[in-house]
Amino acid sequence: MGAELIDGRAFAARLRASVRDRVAEAAPRAGQAPGLAVVLVGHDPASEVYVRSKGKQALEAGMKSFEYRLPETTRAAELLDLIARLNDDAQVHGILVQLPLPAHLDPRAVINAIAPHKDVDGFHISNVGMVGTGQEAIVPCTPLGCMMMLRERHSDLRGRTALVIGHSNVVGKPMARLLLNADCTVMIAHKSSTNIPELARLADILVVAAGVPGLVRADWIKPGAR
Amino acid sequence: MGAELIDGRAFAARLRASVRDRVAEAAPRAGQAPGLAVVLVGHDPASEVYVRSKGKQALEAGMKSFEYRLPETTRAAELLDLIARLNDDAQVHGILVQLPLPAHLDPRAVINAIAPHKDVDGFHISNVGMVGTGQEAIVPCTPLGCMMMLRERHSDLRGRTALVIGHSNVVGKPMARLLLNADCTVMIAHKSSTNIPELARLADILVVAAGVPGLVRADWIKPGAR
Repeated sequence: MGAELIDGRAFAARLRASVRDRVAEAAPRAGQAPGLAVVLVGHDPASEVYVRSKGKQALEAGMKSFEYRLPETTRAAELLDLIARLNDDAQVHGILVQLPLPAHLDPRAVINAIAPHKDVDGFHISNVGMVGTGQEAIVPCTPLGCMMMLRERHSDLRGRTALVIGHSNVVGKPMARLLLNADCTVMIAHKSSTNIPELARLADILVVAAGVPGLVRADWIKPGAR
Repeated sequence: MGAELIDGRAFAARLRASVRDRVAEAAPRAGQAPGLAVVLVGHDPASEVYVRSKGKQALEAGMKSFEYRLPETTRAAELLDLIARLNDDAQVHGILVQLPLPAHLDPRAVINAIAPHKDVDGFHISNVGMVGTGQEAIVPCTPLGCMMMLRERHSDLRGRTALVIGHSNVVGKPMARLLLNADCTVMIAHKSSTNIPELARLADILVVAAGVPGLVRADWIKPGAR
């Protein structure tokens, strides 16, 4: 069997439709639509695009979207105060603080100020720790999406060998955690690794989260891998 | 170079002597010796041995040891109340709740009730999450000891390939996290894995945390591995 490339774009369209259906079904019962608060400090151009897209997708799914745009010079106390108010706001079910933050703000302190059950990025150390001990918790979106696509292909991931290339806190490490929780044999390689081709040839599942286009070469891929 | 077996017993004796020296040096400055509280619910025979040993080692290192032995029938509220008091007790710097707990007590709720900075087992989800995002935190003792022994042999672990066999929350998973934080290429195998010999032959570092004596065979070991 040849290796299979998964069409993420089509998968995303189906997923968005399914979220819309579930919101339409759940909102009347709950008496309100889910609300997503997105906080942007400063005006990093890529962040502007992400924030706009998150607000647009929330509305298209039938959710409420609350955008908070704060100046580059915002002090930590002001940002933490806003997060505390969003934590207490019954209309807000999810809070995203767009990263990167300006250099004078500590992203760890900010993220860990979010109530863990509203931390829809899954970056709070409580959520990381829960996933890291095999519990259900909110997990970062990119690895979660990869898991959804893999599960659509494989009814059972148990015992499959997975290689994750990249060990960021945003993609690589949470991806490895989710694959391990699914009982995969997991290999994690990164920029200090010297034997990635050798590892790739063992992999049934290959997840590249390294931000280097063309990093993986065709002859590294095991036949049948996804 | 042949593979090298590390003498853990000799290492432990040196480490205990060094802890004793550091306590003797730090306690007069702090105005008090460090205090370790160990909580045992019920009378699991293996747990009795561990608790006795922890108390003995604490005293030999010049620390105070506080042992709390509660009946098998202890209710969750009583145990959580004790933990709250130990969290507030200025004489107690570390709290160990011996696992396993009797079946009617939820170990996760109990462990996560310990103040993270007194969670000397490193099982609290905040400590797991901090290590899982590359931060300094309290980590479980077995993987920490393995890292200490590895670092004594290797000035730099970066880029070395490590295989961890076993994915428990107590040893395998935290071991993999520490190796990854040291920039190793990390492979995690476990009872669902089908290709452990193949992975072992790639490993510069092999950590077996599977509780199965004789699991690893000599011909799996890469020459020079530790």
